Amino acid sequence: MPTISRKALTMPESPIRKLVPFAEKAKAAGKEVYHLNIGQPDIETPKVALDAIRNMDRTVIEYSHSAGFQSYRDNLAAYYRKTGINVDADDIIITTGGSEALTFGFMSTCDPDDEVIIPEPFYANYNGFAVAAGLKVVPVTANINDGFALPPVEEFEKKITSKTKAIVICNPGNPTGYLYSREELEKLRDIVKKHDLFLFADEVYREFCYDGAVPFSVLNLEGIENNVIMIDSVSKRYSMCGARIGAIVSKNKEVMASALKFGQARLSPPTIDQIAAEAALKTPQSYFDEVVTEYVERRNIMVDGLNAIEGVFCPKPSGAFYCVAQFPVDSAERFCQWLLEDFEYKGATVMMAPASGFYSTKGNGEQEARIAYVLNKDSLKKAVKCLEEALKVYPGRTYC
Amino acid sequence: MPTISRKALTMPESPIRKLVPFAEKAKAAGKEVYHLNIGQPDIETPKVALDAIRNMDRTVIEYSHSAGFQSYRDNLAAYYRKTGINVDADDIIITTGGSEALTFGFMSTCDPDDEVIIPEPFYANYNGFAVAAGLKVVPVTANINDGFALPPVEEFEKKITSKTKAIVICNPGNPTGYLYSREELEKLRDIVKKHDLFLFADEVYREFCYDGAVPFSVLNLEGIENNVIMIDSVSKRYSMCGARIGAIVSKNKEVMASALKFGQARLSPPTIDQIAAEAALKTPQSYFDEVVTEYVERRNIMVDGLNAIEGVFCPKPSGAFYCVAQFPVDSAERFCQWLLEDFEYKGATVMMAPASGFYSTKGNGEQEARIAYVLNKDSLKKAVKCLEEALKVYPGRTYC
Repeated sequence: MPTISRKALTMPESPIRKLVPFAEKAKAAGKEVYHLNIGQPDIETPKVALDAIRNMDRTVIEYSHSAGFQSYRDNLAAYYRKTGINVDADDIIITTGGSEALTFGFMSTCDPDDEVIIPEPFYANYNGFAVAAGLKVVPVTANINDGFALPPVEEFEKKITSKTKAIVICNPGNPTGYLYSREELEKLRDIVKKHDLFLFADEVYREFCYDGAVPFSVLNLEGIENNVIMIDSVSKRYSMCGARIGAIVSKNKEVMASALKFGQARLSPPTIDQIAAEAALKTPQSYFDEVVTEYVERRNIMVDGLNAIEGVFCPKPSGAFYCVAQFPVDSAERFCQWLLEDFEYKGATVMMAPASGFYSTKGNGEQEARIAYVLNKDSLKKAVKCLEEALKVYPGRTYC
Repeated sequence: MPTISRKALTMPESPIRKLVPFAEKAKAAGKEVYHLNIGQPDIETPKVALDAIRNMDRTVIEYSHSAGFQSYRDNLAAYYRKTGINVDADDIIITTGGSEALTFGFMSTCDPDDEVIIPEPFYANYNGFAVAAGLKVVPVTANINDGFALPPVEEFEKKITSKTKAIVICNPGNPTGYLYSREELEKLRDIVKKHDLFLFADEVYREFCYDGAVPFSVLNLEGIENNVIMIDSVSKRYSMCGARIGAIVSKNKEVMASALKFGQARLSPPTIDQIAAEAALKTPQSYFDEVVTEYVERRNIMVDGLNAIEGVFCPKPSGAFYCVAQFPVDSAERFCQWLLEDFEYKGATVMMAPASGFYSTKGNGEQEARIAYVLNKDSLKKAVKCLEEALKVYPGRTYC
């Protein structure tokens, strides 16, 4: 039997899914499981997008252009301009989800053994894309006690070598929900400019900013237009994760020409889904207002609820729909597994994603878990209560 | 400005699209262009698939499982079993097109600088997937005078080194339309077994076999169950290229576990498109019978028509909807460009894909072009006439 690749052996398993077999067992045993482990919102997809699918009048589902439908790229550029990001269709390639956008970006800028610096904790699948492209992820640790703010510039400088090709951020952040300020982004601009690096920003949670916070796009950082590569996706914005439509956006013509070659190899992003995504651009502002109001309430229930539990600490995020909380436990991974295997409160339990999988530095985040507050308010209240009761009886509970 | 990757620089531009700017100019100048350059059939997508899209009753377009919907995998396995391929759902991972299936397969089996042997001419985008995975493509040349039959075993043996990890075939073949016989596949089995290699087979044209020919799947080769990786796609079978739904199929558990990890990193294949693809499994046999009848007529018009032109030679393929023809010209690339730029007959011209881009060996196929007979019969007749007239006046015409 031929051997599989070293790449396959080093490819990490998704930390989001690691506990799935335990959740399945719990459900098979009749427990209700509150799924706080994955960013699959229950919010309805906008009607304009669903209608576009239902009214699809094509009789042949053909390829689109490898860069996506021209009309969609034009309308998407108009959406960006409306949000204050000055790009046109030529700066955009439509991809199969944000995942493919980042993969095209990595492949276009980095060679095997090149290094990318990422503030940790970070979206765990970045590891997978890095392995696929043969890159090395170099973490700079953000601290839960600072609410996961951007680590000091010196921390980045320390990690920069001749192999460093890029810094990667997610803003607002998954898993932390942290929204970088303009000042923090300008610090990154200075580092990027000084060392001639690429700056990747995953901005897929742009529409999810709370308490009046306004997101600042890396595309608006002056003086590094050729360094910036923005990753986008319709998955969260319109609650259409299954549509697999994203975009890579950059003013760097070389990067875009390369990304298009990778795009041509895979022929085209999905056609029907692009039609839905283009229609979704007509989603009324009231939809987002309602969604943001809902998420603020959910966040408050979750984060305030967690902080009210003795020994639990959770910074209050300004964006996305995740938070990372620290629990008074020996190991968040063991705690999360125990919740599914050995605990129930009123017939229910909670599934969270242990945060260690979102850190690249071994040993970091071992008492932390990521929580996606994507369930309705009533379920979230019950989930918080469940966690409170669980911590009263968990055998690995720690006390300061 | 930071430099792009070496990978980006070596990434080939698609030979299928190289001439697109010339075609656009021709159209802008009012010429009709018969598009024989790309495998985008005009055949209608089955009604059952279109109806599934139109009747989609979901209100949230959620992720599916990373391996695809269980029901789709179950039903797809049943389809394979009906065609005599004995697999079950666990042997299948649904991918975003055949492209992603091959990428997952390459990433799971080969490391950078490993070699894969591919009979040339081959589907040009294999080069792109190889560059993305960092592999080296080693060609074994098939000869147009043999109708592109499998090259002799010795030719493969000569190319095998300690770096060789796999042989890749496409059966029925794009761009040649050649259908490998069971005997030819058994020769490959012996090589693969002897040298402990993987055998990738792109079988996306399985339903397009003519003159009573029956395709033989690599999954039915005995004794190399753990070596075989089959690539599939709904794009051509149901004329739904834009759906971007494919599959990687293998009995090798390690390969499948690895492919799933790559699949988890990108979360899921598109949801609505999977619903359409699952529904398409209910396409009645009459649809395929009609399609095959239509393609046989188209092939005959095209291939017989080409062979009737003095100096043109085109082997008659038994599968897919492509053929590779040799033209009496100095350079097929120049000829193809000239057709778009400088020629018209009755207001029309022809677009073909120069075959040199389908060869890995420099200098091979320079008088050949790939033709996709995906247009209606009347257009094909006109396209053949157009080529006949063009060869009378093309300045680079050669004579034996």
